[in-house]
Amino acid sequence: MNNNPTLETILNHRSIRKFKDKRLTTDQIHTIVKAAQQASTSSHVMAYTIIGVTDESIKADLASISGQPYVKDNGHLLIFCGDLNRIKQQATLQEQVDMQETLESTEQFIVAAIDASLAAQNAALAAESMGIGICFIGSIRNNIRRVNDILDLPDHVVPFFGLALGYPEQQPEKKPRLPIDVVYHENHYQGTDQQRELIKDFDKSLATYYENRSKNSRTDTWTEQMIRKYSNAVRMDVSPYIKEKKFNRR
Amino acid sequence: MNNNPTLETILNHRSIRKFKDKRLTTDQIHTIVKAAQQASTSSHVMAYTIIGVTDESIKADLASISGQPYVKDNGHLLIFCGDLNRIKQQATLQEQVDMQETLESTEQFIVAAIDASLAAQNAALAAESMGIGICFIGSIRNNIRRVNDILDLPDHVVPFFGLALGYPEQQPEKKPRLPIDVVYHENHYQGTDQQRELIKDFDKSLATYYENRSKNSRTDTWTEQMIRKYSNAVRMDVSPYIKEKKFNRR
Repeated sequence: MNNNPTLETILNHRSIRKFKDKRLTTDQIHTIVKAAQQASTSSHVMAYTIIGVTDESIKADLASISGQPYVKDNGHLLIFCGDLNRIKQQATLQEQVDMQETLESTEQFIVAAIDASLAAQNAALAAESMGIGICFIGSIRNNIRRVNDILDLPDHVVPFFGLALGYPEQQPEKKPRLPIDVVYHENHYQGTDQQRELIKDFDKSLATYYENRSKNSRTDTWTEQMIRKYSNAVRMDVSPYIKEKKFNRR
Repeated sequence: MNNNPTLETILNHRSIRKFKDKRLTTDQIHTIVKAAQQASTSSHVMAYTIIGVTDESIKADLASISGQPYVKDNGHLLIFCGDLNRIKQQATLQEQVDMQETLESTEQFIVAAIDASLAAQNAALAAESMGIGICFIGSIRNNIRRVNDILDLPDHVVPFFGLALGYPEQQPEKKPRLPIDVVYHENHYQGTDQQRELIKDFDKSLATYYENRSKNSRTDTWTEQMIRKYSNAVRMDVSPYIKEKKFNRR
């Protein structure tokens, strides 16, 4: 593999959960957002809004929802939202009626989630290429309605996740990924038996990773972790919330 | 703005829709998939599978669904799927019953869409950094059930989009993006009046872009394009299909 600086940035990723007490500059934030915007977008829709949080009390509220101190203590915080409100607002009232079925479709909800995520990964890599660490924050969905209210989101706008940015105060090990043959299939979906065999080995190597890592060492495997996680139904309020916001209704 | 090679890769993006007749090597595909895997993932779930399509008849089928020749004529084609089947298959039958509510939740559907998209954007940038052009293919959702059947996807696996890769046979202009102040807000969602004013200017500059671009020149604005698009309800079969696949049900 002939590495280049972009590949190095990508392959060197690790999530940073402790940041130095130093704000990003306006220029840095501008660069990161411009990078986000340059991502591909479905039919030029750009179905997202990024909210940069500088207000300390909002950060503290979001950190308490998330349960993670680095949502408050970081160099900057971005919240990525799906947004079809912008497009609706460009239309006349009659046109808005004509657009309702599309705006409320699961198809367009998928578009918004994909658009926001492609933009966010560009933002993450742009930041990492500048020596700034990142951590995605799915845990804002612990109380998605409160996030909605804090950020004054109108109908057709929902928060998907946050992205904490800042100068790293830690250098964690790279977290192992599933073997490539589990995730990458050729031409057809592969039988799960083959995947299970490979995951057995992965579980062993992940157990070693967890035992040996410098912080939060523990005894665990990927399989046990996943079964625990999925046996515990959480965030079941996300679905009715999303529908109230006029997404994913039909 | 101090550019670095990663930022240059990101900011230089344009979608390529015509590729040279030259396959990617196994090494290149491996590098691109490894890059995809290194993206952040929600709670280590890695809720996606990537299907690399090499079979020419499958490519032709997908191209006819998509309506785009570059789905067939490219250096390689990846299909990004949301996948919770893998996790379910790790569990005992009793555990699978316990996991059902979570597996079928909208929350976990969002996780799958985000995970797949973050991985895909890494793949796209990895490719672009190697001189390989890319185009995302949302139009496989024109007939999502047929894509499902062609790729033999089991329950809890759905195709989100394709990514066509190859050596560029064209060098299109960079497509303009919405002004940064439309997309990036501080602390709270901004009033739509302010967005509308900025979009007026954007519409003018996009009209100029469409009139002057070297190929497919036309008279259009972003606003007109969006209202046309959203007034025409398409892909309404995506929602029932997704639910049949046991995603996004509760």
